[in-house]
Amino acid sequence: MADRKIGSQTIKFNKPPSIIGTGTVVGPKEGIGPLKDYFDLIINDDLYSEKSWEKAERKMLKEASEMAIKNSKIPFANIEYFISGDLLNQIISSAFTARELGSPFLGIYGACSTIAEGMGLGAILIDGGYADNLLVATSSHFCTAERQFRFPLELGNQRPPTAQWTVTGAGAAVVSSDIKNPRITYFTFGKIIDMGEVDSNSMGTAMAPAAVDTMIRHFQDTGRTPDYYDLIVTGDLSSIGKDVAEDLMKQKGYDISNNYTDCGIMIYNNKQDVHSGGSGCACAATVTCGYLFKQMLEKKYNRVLLVATGALLSTTSSQQGETIPCIAYALSLENL
Amino acid sequence: MADRKIGSQTIKFNKPPSIIGTGTVVGPKEGIGPLKDYFDLIINDDLYSEKSWEKAERKMLKEASEMAIKNSKIPFANIEYFISGDLLNQIISSAFTARELGSPFLGIYGACSTIAEGMGLGAILIDGGYADNLLVATSSHFCTAERQFRFPLELGNQRPPTAQWTVTGAGAAVVSSDIKNPRITYFTFGKIIDMGEVDSNSMGTAMAPAAVDTMIRHFQDTGRTPDYYDLIVTGDLSSIGKDVAEDLMKQKGYDISNNYTDCGIMIYNNKQDVHSGGSGCACAATVTCGYLFKQMLEKKYNRVLLVATGALLSTTSSQQGETIPCIAYALSLENL
Repeated sequence: MADRKIGSQTIKFNKPPSIIGTGTVVGPKEGIGPLKDYFDLIINDDLYSEKSWEKAERKMLKEASEMAIKNSKIPFANIEYFISGDLLNQIISSAFTARELGSPFLGIYGACSTIAEGMGLGAILIDGGYADNLLVATSSHFCTAERQFRFPLELGNQRPPTAQWTVTGAGAAVVSSDIKNPRITYFTFGKIIDMGEVDSNSMGTAMAPAAVDTMIRHFQDTGRTPDYYDLIVTGDLSSIGKDVAEDLMKQKGYDISNNYTDCGIMIYNNKQDVHSGGSGCACAATVTCGYLFKQMLEKKYNRVLLVATGALLSTTSSQQGETIPCIAYALSLENL
Repeated sequence: MADRKIGSQTIKFNKPPSIIGTGTVVGPKEGIGPLKDYFDLIINDDLYSEKSWEKAERKMLKEASEMAIKNSKIPFANIEYFISGDLLNQIISSAFTARELGSPFLGIYGACSTIAEGMGLGAILIDGGYADNLLVATSSHFCTAERQFRFPLELGNQRPPTAQWTVTGAGAAVVSSDIKNPRITYFTFGKIIDMGEVDSNSMGTAMAPAAVDTMIRHFQDTGRTPDYYDLIVTGDLSSIGKDVAEDLMKQKGYDISNNYTDCGIMIYNNKQDVHSGGSGCACAATVTCGYLFKQMLEKKYNRVLLVATGALLSTTSSQQGETIPCIAYALSLENL
């Protein structure tokens, strides 16, 4: 019966949905990073002329969404669903953006893996004949995340070397039944993997085993090997987590050292004082919807495996002594 | 192309998925209410022998999930996905339960509408050929919700008459391609509707317009009229919100007064001091997976329209002066 599922947790799309347009907005810090030329809009003020960082975050999400629709060249009225989630409690960035957009809304939560969870679900809706065009988006903001998950910024707490910098930005993509490159060919679901990490300033090491689990599952389910892809890119493991993932993959018999990188490493340069690298929903989202999408349009990459990672902790779970449950969703993006 | 979508936001299932088993766990207060005989397990202690209410909540969610699988009579290994969300920040009840269950996980957030959002998505995965069996579940807990969204319980704040009582409990359902009654025949997505309500102690009035919008959309998309259904049941509008919804429907030309009720009214009796009635993710979930499912198995109802409602606010959005964005998802449950 489940003829579109292969192996244990991978969907193979019969009619691979297309990404027909993207939109990205990033903050000032991301706007001077190595990928600055690939973002549609760089804001020059973390508050983006709003009264709170939370309002600024959802303004970015709304604008990235509108840009994605504009760039896709389809009328706004053709957007059938808005799939979105974000780090803020009760995904308020997404819900308030959904209110502004007015499209039917599907709220999801995968922490920093949201862009892949959303694009995977979106591709299912398109491939299955439930929609022709829909919008997937997510956002994060250094200031909203830091004060919600860690400390008030005003305290000026020192950050350990393993800490990552939450990307300020938003990324959005229109997924469509129109046939254009790049296409979403496979979607591998993730399981919760929790290896006992408790330090919310060491997310890369917490999430690396989840990325590895999903990558291996993807290769086993599809029969592909790492060298099939021009690029394998995890969401936000950053420098420490990337090394862990590469080592764990090697232990399992997969050498990804030649074609593997991480969005959290790509988005900032070494001099930007971000410690281990970037993180947050907008990390994988802006790199995917900005850099990767545009490189695929230009055929600089033709086969990309995006493995977006998420740490599903809350301050409450941490305060109650819990470890960090992590997940990763993998999307195969290909020019066909 | 989108041949399984009808009207503006409704999915018509070609092979209507079945609900083949459910599990429900409720707290002591729900366990003396009018529906007590329809729940699988009544716990006699809000802490459920755990060290925190949050841990108690996810213990209920895990047990309801395991019961649903057991009652569905399929092996645990056949559960391909676990779709879940809850009210706690970063949906920790769901994420930690997913860790225990070990199934591939899809985290969603629809506040108290989660059971319908999840069952709708689950039905799409089954109908589309992406899975044969999956589990949908959600939970809430009076004590975790009250202290997260309103005040520490220890303060003993007085609650206004419009306030609702968050249901302590968890509901889970196995959705399957096996052909058994009841079936999920239609799923109508919701839009964010925000009529300007700001009072987090008046959720019923905030959510009623969202329920009305989705109900009308459902009737328009399907061509059905309210009298098609044996029962139309909203998620957690409770007594005040139900009256508002009924009035608004009448203004729009739909008389639902003969066959309409609300889970928040059904789950408690008048003497239980819950003010306007029940709310929370577990409200619609336990009533649907407990009472409605069992009544449909016995053919006391054959056509039920479940319209689960959610208020997508957070404490941060309220503190920043925002109104309450609301949503409702409708599921058509039928014995075929």
